Amino acid sequence: MLENLKREVFDANIRLVDYNLVISTWGNVSGIDRNNNLIVIKPSGVDYDELSADDMVVVDLNGNVVEGELKPSSDTPTHIELYKAFPKIKGVTHSHSTYATVFAQALMEIPCLGTTHADNFYGPVPLTRFLTKDEVKENYEKNTGLVIIERLADMEIESVPGILVAGHGPFCWGKSAADSVEKNLILEKIAEIAFKTLSLNKEVKNLPDYILDKHFLRKHGPKAYYGQKK
Amino acid sequence: MLENLKREVFDANIRLVDYNLVISTWGNVSGIDRNNNLIVIKPSGVDYDELSADDMVVVDLNGNVVEGELKPSSDTPTHIELYKAFPKIKGVTHSHSTYATVFAQALMEIPCLGTTHADNFYGPVPLTRFLTKDEVKENYEKNTGLVIIERLADMEIESVPGILVAGHGPFCWGKSAADSVEKNLILEKIAEIAFKTLSLNKEVKNLPDYILDKHFLRKHGPKAYYGQKK
Amino acid sequence: MLENLKREVFDANIRLVDYNLVISTWGNVSGIDRNNNLIVIKPSGVDYDELSADDMVVVDLNGNVVEGELKPSSDTPTHIELYKAFPKIKGVTHSHSTYATVFAQALMEIPCLGTTHADNFYGPVPLTRFLTKDEVKENYEKNTGLVIIERLADMEIESVPGILVAGHGPFCWGKSAADSVEKNLILEKIAEIAFKTLSLNKEVKNLPDYILDKHFLRKHGPKAYYGQKK
Amino acid sequence: MLENLKREVFDANIRLVDYNLVISTWGNVSGIDRNNNLIVIKPSGVDYDELSADDMVVVDLNGNVVEGELKPSSDTPTHIELYKAFPKIKGVTHSHSTYATVFAQALMEIPCLGTTHADNFYGPVPLTRFLTKDEVKENYEKNTGLVIIERLADMEIESVPGILVAGHGPFCWGKSAADSVEKNLILEKIAEIAFKTLSLNKEVKNLPDYILDKHFLRKHGPKAYYGQKK
Repeated sequence: MLENLKREVFDANIRLVDYNLVISTWGNVSGIDRNNNLIVIKPSGVDYDELSADDMVVVDLNGNVVEGELKPSSDTPTHIELYKAFPKIKGVTHSHSTYATVFAQALMEIPCLGTTHADNFYGPVPLTRFLTKDEVKENYEKNTGLVIIERLADMEIESVPGILVAGHGPFCWGKSAADSVEKNLILEKIAEIAFKTLSLNKEVKNLPDYILDKHFLRKHGPKAYYGQKK
Repeated sequence: MLENLKREVFDANIRLVDYNLVISTWGNVSGIDRNNNLIVIKPSGVDYDELSADDMVVVDLNGNVVEGELKPSSDTPTHIELYKAFPKIKGVTHSHSTYATVFAQALMEIPCLGTTHADNFYGPVPLTRFLTKDEVKENYEKNTGLVIIERLADMEIESVPGILVAGHGPFCWGKSAADSVEKNLILEKIAEIAFKTLSLNKEVKNLPDYILDKHFLRKHGPKAYYGQKK
Repeated sequence: MLENLKREVFDANIRLVDYNLVISTWGNVSGIDRNNNLIVIKPSGVDYDELSADDMVVVDLNGNVVEGELKPSSDTPTHIELYKAFPKIKGVTHSHSTYATVFAQALMEIPCLGTTHADNFYGPVPLTRFLTKDEVKENYEKNTGLVIIERLADMEIESVPGILVAGHGPFCWGKSAADSVEKNLILEKIAEIAFKTLSLNKEVKNLPDYILDKHFLRKHGPKAYYGQKK
Repeated sequence: MLENLKREVFDANIRLVDYNLVISTWGNVSGIDRNNNLIVIKPSGVDYDELSADDMVVVDLNGNVVEGELKPSSDTPTHIELYKAFPKIKGVTHSHSTYATVFAQALMEIPCLGTTHADNFYGPVPLTRFLTKDEVKENYEKNTGLVIIERLADMEIESVPGILVAGHGPFCWGKSAADSVEKNLILEKIAEIAFKTLSLNKEVKNLPDYILDKHFLRKHGPKAYYGQKK
């Protein structure tokens, strides 16, 4: 079942390696079939070298395995919460990509310091709070999803294609599995440039709002004029 | 029409990827046919993987599309202003290459700290001012070009093969599309070395003028003796 | 003799190059046959390009060459001490991988600043003391092993898959030669992220203990639920 | 003439690119035939992509071109001075490799902070003074060689396989063209690790002398025991 989606999700996971966003068995990408409410996700702790499209696991929105020989990613409950909270997203990526993880560990949002950032995030990249002891003890991975959703409470999901979980790393999302990986790639580059900008000039201020507006809105929303007509 | 120039511009755009100066759909390179006053430029927001020489768009100096199925880069008006202001240049590259963008975001010129820099820029790499709210609101991309030209007012274009736009990133130029990409590659390396030099020793001074003169003038101008005779 | 182990150890040494953990002739990986108490290790100072599986050297636990035309790695006595002290390990890797070496030279343990670290080390990455003048003068490489063992005195070897030798660099270990290289790769990434986190925010605190516990113990020990059942 | 040496020098120049020590047309490697006092060197300002072994230029110790269609590297007089001053060296490499150039621009020697350094340089990597205005005006490249030689006055050439020219970048040497490139690769890695160590801990002290002695002398000189017997 869902052979096309399995292939898409497999390709997206491999791209995570090709983009240098993960090493070892780290990271996981999923995609959702919104008609059937079924998620396809990478199996847990398998070497990317040994992975095939057939190894992708199908789970429902309660986390039950519907098809697949292998255990799904241990982060599956986080993906499920995101899909349930945000009907517009169809792909989710989690990695420990270096610079995004650096901001997550430093407990700092990524400020919007330039148009590279403004083209992709409509404001700072948000950071969650730490999970509490109780949230970690039971249903840790599900609660990770809930803490992300809590942080995004007043935000438009299209304006924020990713987030940093405190002390952990980034989760990103998009209109497909592949798109969520692309968002992680972009987040990683934005984080790298912000990190180095702050290193060069600690006094730097955020980009003026009118330039942020211009750049985000020329690429996103009804008045966008970047890219080709679809 | 302009099949050779299309091929050149396409190759130059691909080189931008090979040189790691762009990710995703970022960046754009153009070339100009000075006899016909026609510019060939990358289409807007197309994946590099899916790009072919035939996708390159031909525009005139008023920004009208003369040939091509796709919309030209949204930065086309910036390229046009540069070609109009500087008759000697025949190629323009825009990217968000990491270290050049870091200086642009930090609102710092790149000081001339060594001979690597002096071989290529005859003094600091200049930085524009921010565009005003009005300049952003209407004709943003054209005004980006005008702000660059304003900053270069008293300079020789051959001595300054590139510039940093405040809060944005680099624009570079040269005697062909390929040459403008080469200039961006060199600017990026100069920026990287300057960034790290300032990180190691904040008190470092500019290279003595007599060494700057020697290095720039042994590679450029009538007394150059670097390279082969053309 | 031990042809399979030679192949494994050779492959693991080559992986050290592929992972960018070594340049030139630096670094060495070994594996042990616990049934026969024989170690297979890379020869000393040979170019990786010219290395073959047949060049691997077989030594016993007293350092005597049992088979092989070439001299074993000059670090062989360090490997031997580690195998003698820790019966559970079956592979050892030594490199001068950049960020791990940076912490070793800075004489700093790597603090546990995030879940990337907590997934792999159950607490900070330890640092040895400097060897004394006498320890360096005679049996330097053996004493390097003893100083590592001294530092690990009260620790579980499974919770600490690697260590930093002061002023020198990392040694890592695992359940095979390949696994010890994987541990070095992971240590290097952890070190890189910690280095950059400290650079961005010097005041950052260690990850809360309850998150460290959760992450380490979901991957290691009897209650682990990450990965597939073996 | 000297076809073997041309091939060696060509291969060494290409390796400079493969090792990421140069971009564009930067850098140059030479080798010397000590029997005939003839130097083979890269031509000036030619793209590495377009270079072939036949393009290598043969010059004598007075800088006269003995064979070759192209102009030799503009740095040829520097190479000549080094060959004349140090009869034991048979290859010279000049590059603007990033971290070595960073120390040269920061006007700092590279302190010996660890065994990676001590395995290769018997003490800090030296830095020349700036050339004076007069030294730059006439015979700049020859004077660059003389300033290097001045700085090495009391040193053993075997203990110092490279140097930093103030505000410029590294020159390295060895027992062949290929060996001098290898020395630049190693210098670059040492510089990178030192740069990052100083960034992490500004108070770090030099490696104790007894460890420096041990590491340098186990690889070099009559009591060396690293590597295979030649």
